Amino acid sequence: SGLVLVKNPHLDLMEEDVLYHLDLGTKTHNLPAMFGDIKFVCVGGSPNRMRAFAQFMQRELGLAGDGQDVADICAGSDRYAMYRAGPVLSISHGMGIPSISIMLHELIKLLHHAKCRDVTIIRIGTSGGLGIEAGSVVITDTAVDSSFQPRFEQVVLDDVVVRSTELDRDLAEELLACSREIPDFPTLIGHTMCTYDFYEGQGRLDGALCSFSSEKKLEYLRRAYDAGVRNIEMESTAFAALCGLCGLKGESCRFHLL
Amino acid sequence: SGLVLVKNPHLDLMEEDVLYHLDLGTKTHNLPAMFGDIKFVCVGGSPNRMRAFAQFMQRELGLAGDGQDVADICAGSDRYAMYRAGPVLSISHGMGIPSISIMLHELIKLLHHAKCRDVTIIRIGTSGGLGIEAGSVVITDTAVDSSFQPRFEQVVLDDVVVRSTELDRDLAEELLACSREIPDFPTLIGHTMCTYDFYEGQGRLDGALCSFSSEKKLEYLRRAYDAGVRNIEMESTAFAALCGLCGLKGESCRFHLL
Repeated sequence: SGLVLVKNPHLDLMEEDVLYHLDLGTKTHNLPAMFGDIKFVCVGGSPNRMRAFAQFMQRELGLAGDGQDVADICAGSDRYAMYRAGPVLSISHGMGIPSISIMLHELIKLLHHAKCRDVTIIRIGTSGGLGIEAGSVVITDTAVDSSFQPRFEQVVLDDVVVRSTELDRDLAEELLACSREIPDFPTLIGHTMCTYDFYEGQGRLDGALCSFSSEKKLEYLRRAYDAGVRNIEMESTAFAALCGLCGLKGESCRFHLL
Repeated sequence: SGLVLVKNPHLDLMEEDVLYHLDLGTKTHNLPAMFGDIKFVCVGGSPNRMRAFAQFMQRELGLAGDGQDVADICAGSDRYAMYRAGPVLSISHGMGIPSISIMLHELIKLLHHAKCRDVTIIRIGTSGGLGIEAGSVVITDTAVDSSFQPRFEQVVLDDVVVRSTELDRDLAEELLACSREIPDFPTLIGHTMCTYDFYEGQGRLDGALCSFSSEKKLEYLRRAYDAGVRNIEMESTAFAALCGLCGLKGESCRFHLL
């Protein structure tokens, strides 16, 4: 049917669903009227960037306005920012798995309540590249954890549930085909490694703590490269797992800055 | 000496330290002049709340201005917001361990570069209370994980390092004594449970996914209560571990809203 899947039998029993961190709700907002025609959701860490992206989409889609008039739909909350440009929703998710996870739970319920169909979700932003040219874009085929395994371990109460982290292969190929029309951004498909920590977890030597040598760091990153990892960031495994479970066609495209 | 401890031999070899997510650096800013007299750092999830807190501190400390003129020191970055009121720094950390961890690494290095002495750090904000009256404040003695253990598992490259999550007992008692002067907020000392997920991790029945019954949820929360847990949030174990390792006197005080 193209609808998103909310796998929660409790939800039907609720009189009202408050999407607290988005400052939206089923009683306070007409979600089908506000969001029913959404076809694409783009998410990224930084609120300013997601605003700039919505303005860019407005211009690209030839929509009315000079691109300066996008309003934050979640203005009543400072947890996330949300903008729309025609059928495209642009939302920030902050940094790290717990932060993106709260947003995705509420976004998926939003799409469910709004009865959206055939929605594609794409994560955009920056990441650390591994053995690739600066300025490259990595499209993720599979998100992997810090042991290079394609899995997301989610603690549900005190049980550990292991979830798959494969992304949509057709969508990855489609995005790769699009990239061929843009000459200045070398684009490739590869594995994306997701960590819980930016400094010690990603082998940075400049955190407040660092107990490893640059040799050990290089050895680890070399093993990651050999396992197919082409970039490192902090949200992809949770993103892939939640999209997969809820029937959302999802992809991650990350720009390698330095 | 009262200085913070940066346990990273690589740091001394760096010509410049860019605190990227704070938009500060050792070459671009005179950190000792800007921050050398800081004695208290208060951190919380929401940027708006941390701004309001800095304004409140300005009024409480009888500092010049009407409390409306605090400027975001990290205005060049939209990852975190930072304000100061006299010797008090007020910083947002977003939601979840990865997000607070990036901020703490850069904050600890900031205090180190600024040669701050005898700094106390207090985490403030809201949390979910467990078997306590709404409107209570929980001061954390020990942060525990979802298995109620006083530990923080940090993945360093692909090794798992286990760290202690005890907070400063004297500071907890001092804060409890302060609370006796404020009649309207029942305050107690207890364990704080830290989870990686807001919905499935904390037993909420209203996420996009939910595979457990309300009975299983209650049974889990009852076990948590019996283990001494009085509130649940998403940052305390990482906060306790990093403060402890870097010699920062730290505490967490959380308000139980509902």
